Amino acid sequence: MPIESLRDVPAATSELLQKIFAERRPAASDIAPGFADAVDAMGGFVLRGGKRVRPTFAWAGYQAAGPARALPDEMLTVCAALEFVQACALIHDDIIDRSDTRRGHPTVHREFEQLHRDSGWLGSPESYGEGVAILLGDLALAWADDLFRAAGFTPDVVAAVADIWAGMRTEVLAGQYLDITAEAAGDESPVAAHRVMRFKTAAYTVERPLQLGAAIGGADADLIEALRSFGTDVGVAFQLRDDVLGVFGDPEVTGKPAGDDIIAGKRTALLAAALNLSDINDPAAARVLRERIGKKLGPAELAETTQIILDSGAVARVETQIGELVESAMITLTASSADATAKADLADLATSMTQRRA
Amino acid sequence: MPIESLRDVPAATSELLQKIFAERRPAASDIAPGFADAVDAMGGFVLRGGKRVRPTFAWAGYQAAGPARALPDEMLTVCAALEFVQACALIHDDIIDRSDTRRGHPTVHREFEQLHRDSGWLGSPESYGEGVAILLGDLALAWADDLFRAAGFTPDVVAAVADIWAGMRTEVLAGQYLDITAEAAGDESPVAAHRVMRFKTAAYTVERPLQLGAAIGGADADLIEALRSFGTDVGVAFQLRDDVLGVFGDPEVTGKPAGDDIIAGKRTALLAAALNLSDINDPAAARVLRERIGKKLGPAELAETTQIILDSGAVARVETQIGELVESAMITLTASSADATAKADLADLATSMTQRRA
Repeated sequence: MPIESLRDVPAATSELLQKIFAERRPAASDIAPGFADAVDAMGGFVLRGGKRVRPTFAWAGYQAAGPARALPDEMLTVCAALEFVQACALIHDDIIDRSDTRRGHPTVHREFEQLHRDSGWLGSPESYGEGVAILLGDLALAWADDLFRAAGFTPDVVAAVADIWAGMRTEVLAGQYLDITAEAAGDESPVAAHRVMRFKTAAYTVERPLQLGAAIGGADADLIEALRSFGTDVGVAFQLRDDVLGVFGDPEVTGKPAGDDIIAGKRTALLAAALNLSDINDPAAARVLRERIGKKLGPAELAETTQIILDSGAVARVETQIGELVESAMITLTASSADATAKADLADLATSMTQRRA
Repeated sequence: MPIESLRDVPAATSELLQKIFAERRPAASDIAPGFADAVDAMGGFVLRGGKRVRPTFAWAGYQAAGPARALPDEMLTVCAALEFVQACALIHDDIIDRSDTRRGHPTVHREFEQLHRDSGWLGSPESYGEGVAILLGDLALAWADDLFRAAGFTPDVVAAVADIWAGMRTEVLAGQYLDITAEAAGDESPVAAHRVMRFKTAAYTVERPLQLGAAIGGADADLIEALRSFGTDVGVAFQLRDDVLGVFGDPEVTGKPAGDDIIAGKRTALLAAALNLSDINDPAAARVLRERIGKKLGPAELAETTQIILDSGAVARVETQIGELVESAMITLTASSADATAKADLADLATSMTQRRA
């Protein structure tokens, strides 16, 4: 399907992904029919992801470079490649977080754990499920690079995008590593929370996809730098919104249990701010907060804990930060040489991602 | 260091790998000092691996293409990239196999499990160690592709090698998936055992590296096809030798406990042959064998089990297969248009890999 506006990108990406899995099935089946089944499971996972946030930002960056629109097919291939990177990140993250469901289905490791159980196989179903999920995540990551290569860019374009593509993959893995390490170490520093936001979310979800599209579209260095700045601001604001929703979100809207981040013990910037402010203004509250992070809590305890976070002034501080980041992003965007349509689209995206309720 | 013979490849690859880690450290440290520590751990792992089997075969393929020796630096970069693929494969395999040591050191997941324990951190040390190892394996795989891209091949060379590089990564992951699935399902078919050998070992270790080097060296389609055939034969023979050593190897020479594969429940071609032959000639022995695979056994039980495998005629059959495969490989090699020095080197490699005692 032709892409006429940014709203067409998710469906066009999904269509291409479907085509890619259909094309690859025979080769997988030639290796072994059982391997084709595993590839089908990966395909199901990739095709269930509907929002296509990274392809949308990549295409927005591509549009920002100007109306010329060279290389649209190559650009769409890169959009598909981004979804394969994302498949690896999510499949592996779900193992690390011991998550049971994703996108309304069992996670990949749970799906194969169940297959093992249903088949009455030997050994541990959990280990088998995890093993398959590790391998399928690896396969998704390998295929992401195969697709990127298959886009067939000239050496000039490869030179323009290679560092961005490399940076994106290293940064998201670094962000995930820093995230689990901060959580394990009980790190309360705002610096640590900010690093995780910067690399795990902002760089990976917004900044790098935008730059990737812009570089493919032939943007100059100034525009690529402006998109970096815009992307970091919007990406961090997006994560801060996520942090607020993770504690105060309406379970009926977010689809996640109330106070999810508190019980999970997530080391968010919101929590870091709440701890820092309480240490100064209400040490007794800070003590209660520290005791309860990462524990199973009853409704009364949970309500009291979220009230401590609210009373600390952390939510007000984070809301101010979100406002400032979005404002900064808009100033950068307005001053940039981005194409007019792309500017309007990016402004809309920045608003919807940072003002959402779910 | 300049590479004058195939024997120089391991040291030259290690030297380049050391340089790559030194160059990448500052960027990792810019993300976060803690991330640089994790990259150091990956570097330690990569640099401890000394045999560099895949780089050696890749360089042999490159030599086979003729004496012109264009692109030697690019070729060495690909050798380093192969070791990053291997780092991912081993780090993730060690999680899947729950291995404690590798190359005389704790495996990566155990190393970070211990760090967690020593630091008195929150949550499960095992989960943290596994999480970090999943992420560092992913990082190694991403860096493998970054290096491959950084080699900076012209579109012609990229077109010649892309399918080989893509095939190699998909095949090793498929082979690992088929391996753990055959083990879980208790699959006794020689076909399943052969598939695992073909993809997990032969394609990944010999055939694809050879082809990769040959394609970079500018080999024609006939030579690339001859190397595929040679590589499959030698790779399968290598794995069959491994299977024999996994049951009958001298622990003092292999460094692995006696009867390692029996206790681990590995679904090898040797075991498949032993079961098939015993089913026909000695059903009582077949029953004992089936009962004992994958169980902890005392010395007497282990000795009896290995005797059953020997008495079944499976070892003789496998030795015959090894001999036939090596002979077939040598015939292909002799008839090929490979460079004379490369022919001699490849013949030596085929012998040493299939007649070894460890």
